Amino acid sequence: MAEQKKMVEAITPMEEDFAKWYTDIVKKAELMDYSSVRGCMVIEPYGYAIWENIRDNLDKRFKELGHVNVSMPMFIPESLLQKEKDHVEGFAPEVAWVTHGGTEELQERLCVRPTSETLFCDHYSRIVHSWRDLPKLYNQWCSVVRWEKTTRPFLRSVEFHWQEGHTLHETAEEARAETEQMLKVYADFCENDLAIPVAKGCKTDKEKFAGAEATYTIEAMMHDGKALQAGTSHYFGDGFAKAFDITFQDRENKPQHPHQTSWGMSTRIIGGIIMTHGDNNGLVLPPAVAPIQVVILPIAMHKEGVLEKATELKERLKKSFRVHLDDSEQSPGWKFAQYEMKGVPLRLEIGPKDIEKGQCVLVRRHDREKVFVPLENLEAAITEQLEEVRRGIYERALERRESMTYTAKTMDELKEIAENKPGFIKAMWCGDTACEEKLKEVAGVSSRCMPFEQEEITDTCVCCGKKAKAMVYWGKAY
Amino acid sequence: MAEQKKMVEAITPMEEDFAKWYTDIVKKAELMDYSSVRGCMVIEPYGYAIWENIRDNLDKRFKELGHVNVSMPMFIPESLLQKEKDHVEGFAPEVAWVTHGGTEELQERLCVRPTSETLFCDHYSRIVHSWRDLPKLYNQWCSVVRWEKTTRPFLRSVEFHWQEGHTLHETAEEARAETEQMLKVYADFCENDLAIPVAKGCKTDKEKFAGAEATYTIEAMMHDGKALQAGTSHYFGDGFAKAFDITFQDRENKPQHPHQTSWGMSTRIIGGIIMTHGDNNGLVLPPAVAPIQVVILPIAMHKEGVLEKATELKERLKKSFRVHLDDSEQSPGWKFAQYEMKGVPLRLEIGPKDIEKGQCVLVRRHDREKVFVPLENLEAAITEQLEEVRRGIYERALERRESMTYTAKTMDELKEIAENKPGFIKAMWCGDTACEEKLKEVAGVSSRCMPFEQEEITDTCVCCGKKAKAMVYWGKAY
Repeated sequence: MAEQKKMVEAITPMEEDFAKWYTDIVKKAELMDYSSVRGCMVIEPYGYAIWENIRDNLDKRFKELGHVNVSMPMFIPESLLQKEKDHVEGFAPEVAWVTHGGTEELQERLCVRPTSETLFCDHYSRIVHSWRDLPKLYNQWCSVVRWEKTTRPFLRSVEFHWQEGHTLHETAEEARAETEQMLKVYADFCENDLAIPVAKGCKTDKEKFAGAEATYTIEAMMHDGKALQAGTSHYFGDGFAKAFDITFQDRENKPQHPHQTSWGMSTRIIGGIIMTHGDNNGLVLPPAVAPIQVVILPIAMHKEGVLEKATELKERLKKSFRVHLDDSEQSPGWKFAQYEMKGVPLRLEIGPKDIEKGQCVLVRRHDREKVFVPLENLEAAITEQLEEVRRGIYERALERRESMTYTAKTMDELKEIAENKPGFIKAMWCGDTACEEKLKEVAGVSSRCMPFEQEEITDTCVCCGKKAKAMVYWGKAY
Repeated sequence: MAEQKKMVEAITPMEEDFAKWYTDIVKKAELMDYSSVRGCMVIEPYGYAIWENIRDNLDKRFKELGHVNVSMPMFIPESLLQKEKDHVEGFAPEVAWVTHGGTEELQERLCVRPTSETLFCDHYSRIVHSWRDLPKLYNQWCSVVRWEKTTRPFLRSVEFHWQEGHTLHETAEEARAETEQMLKVYADFCENDLAIPVAKGCKTDKEKFAGAEATYTIEAMMHDGKALQAGTSHYFGDGFAKAFDITFQDRENKPQHPHQTSWGMSTRIIGGIIMTHGDNNGLVLPPAVAPIQVVILPIAMHKEGVLEKATELKERLKKSFRVHLDDSEQSPGWKFAQYEMKGVPLRLEIGPKDIEKGQCVLVRRHDREKVFVPLENLEAAITEQLEEVRRGIYERALERRESMTYTAKTMDELKEIAENKPGFIKAMWCGDTACEEKLKEVAGVSSRCMPFEQEEITDTCVCCGKKAKAMVYWGKAY
């Protein structure tokens, strides 16, 4: 028990220092290690297994909707990056530049891709000729580089993993529908598989992606009330197509520019999982992406038959779940703390008395509820308990978000809330970027999104008093 | 039929111009597109789907042997690359250098990883302390960059995809066993799943990996008699561990350096598949990695019931196979040629007469053999025919390799064969690098490997006449 105590004490409680609590978890749950490369991390096996589960889940969803995977170069020649004006202005200040290949200086420098719109457009301009070639529904899993000054594991790093979907369509309507569809895919994945409630909405012009006509976003609320942008989907109109001269013959045989989208979700979401579900005992993982869904811990392991039974259960359960049997010589107390730290959704304990009774104990990570389960119905009981975990952590997160979402009718109200109450603030806005900038300056909040589910709190802008255009979620963000 | 003819004529026959035949296939089977980035390619959906199947197959094999996936940074600081002397000499001349981040010049330049030994060692030096931390069985799927002057799709490109396994062990014996085990995994995958016969063996000192004590390799023979190195596995001893100060307390509580391996297989193998199995009608894909295993072509598609039956078959077969139904308005002749070009192992034809008889036709891509199959046993028949394809293309490749492998007892014999007969030459070697260099100079061949299956052709070196140490496969290589 000394060991267990030592481990639990080693995490800074989130109430004391939230940032420290976060980094304690990423290190102690063995998700990542700092590397010798500034701002780049090593994703360790346990962290990478979470990302593999996220990837496989999303990839299946994308493919079911007709998307296919491709691979673009990791470099972008400077001249290609510069073709779309807004895009280059947004990204050029934060890219890494390759200037030498081997011993020679390059004639044109190359940036390491910060995102791949320009590469996809360059390819599309060569392969799209007729409406019969459309739609193009391409996606890529890769890592990208943005030269960030301040970095934090998973939340903001110089290199990060993501997927980027890039699609081309005959009409604006079709492209808009794709943009919305992919946002729904992200929202459904977050809410149903990651158990993270999200607000779906539109970014303001100030916050949208460089080069986009519209950016849709899902915003999640973390433990500390800050927002995390969990996934975005962009509608580009035909701006990029014009800049890159992508032209197709339409059904009337007239030349047209196709309409374009892109959408992405990144390893950042792992930070979102930690800060939505984690607690002072460590990580809490949603079953859909947990590398280990059930950890089997034999109790009084050296008593006759215990290890045999535990091994038998592992062999049986691995057909249906991701299971791990810990038959190491560590004490049960150490093991309890260890797998709580790693956020394993269910702990299965089996000892001599359980074996006598033909049962085992299932303990849920998030609320430590115990249930005694007959071995014969074990698979059904585990399925039920995993669903209970999913539902439980989703509702806990939803309740927290609701209790930390406030309404402001006036600037004074908004300032008072922003200063004293972490969370989201719902307030009306006129649509003017000047007001958005003022709110940032005066209250320290930025617009998170104009949610699809609008409410009319007042009919005037909380800042300038002019006619309101939309309700906005305001808040501090990662 | 005009369309079909056009397509088939569009490939250069391999007898006429092998290099052109190869690039015709990669383009016309839509495996890749050239990009605006020198030496980097766009892997198109059909090509990338082959790579995904290769990846999933290998990844499963690695994980079954206890390996786990991680992600290392894509950059290596110059000082880190320089830590192991042989390694930096081998790679520094061919890396891409990042010198600027955003608008600032970096204090230390970073190379884009050409391989990640140095990054793994840097990480291992932080996390390995005790024999209890060993073995470390890590693998990474990523892309790497080598600043090659002349590039060819899949075979040699500036950026390419691969996996790189990096393992650490308590003892030299254990590390050597791992090196051999992983070579066997590659060989088994190539022979059984890709149907590519390979020679397993050891590289000479001249040809081994920069920094390795020993490099094991599998070498395949292409249509034109040239060798393709299909996968390599390296034993490092404790050289890197010393250079990177990786130390662990052994079971006697004494400090030790662990022993290390690395092993990799890349997208190059896609080039190997093309040049082993392809023919003058296009690609021929081994069923295990074919994105489409069975293409369903409805004949007289607009006759009543045909399309319905074809759709019903697709829905039924997709539970067991990767199937595609082509219900486009293109002619059957065009479709036949198209899916031959794409190397789909089996074509399933179904028309009004077949439906009447309750049957369909299966046509094998590689030998165009037709079988009529009752619909009720279709799954079993397809499984059998896919196995027939695998066996058929393997044996064809093996026969070719055997018929193109020669034995030379003297230098004159070797020169005569090297000049006139493409293929492998088996000849004895004394172990001296000078003789290896002489053979390159005089006969234009390099040592491919010292095969594990040795024969004693003579007892003296084919070059210098001194006592022979090993039989070597000599040849020209990609």
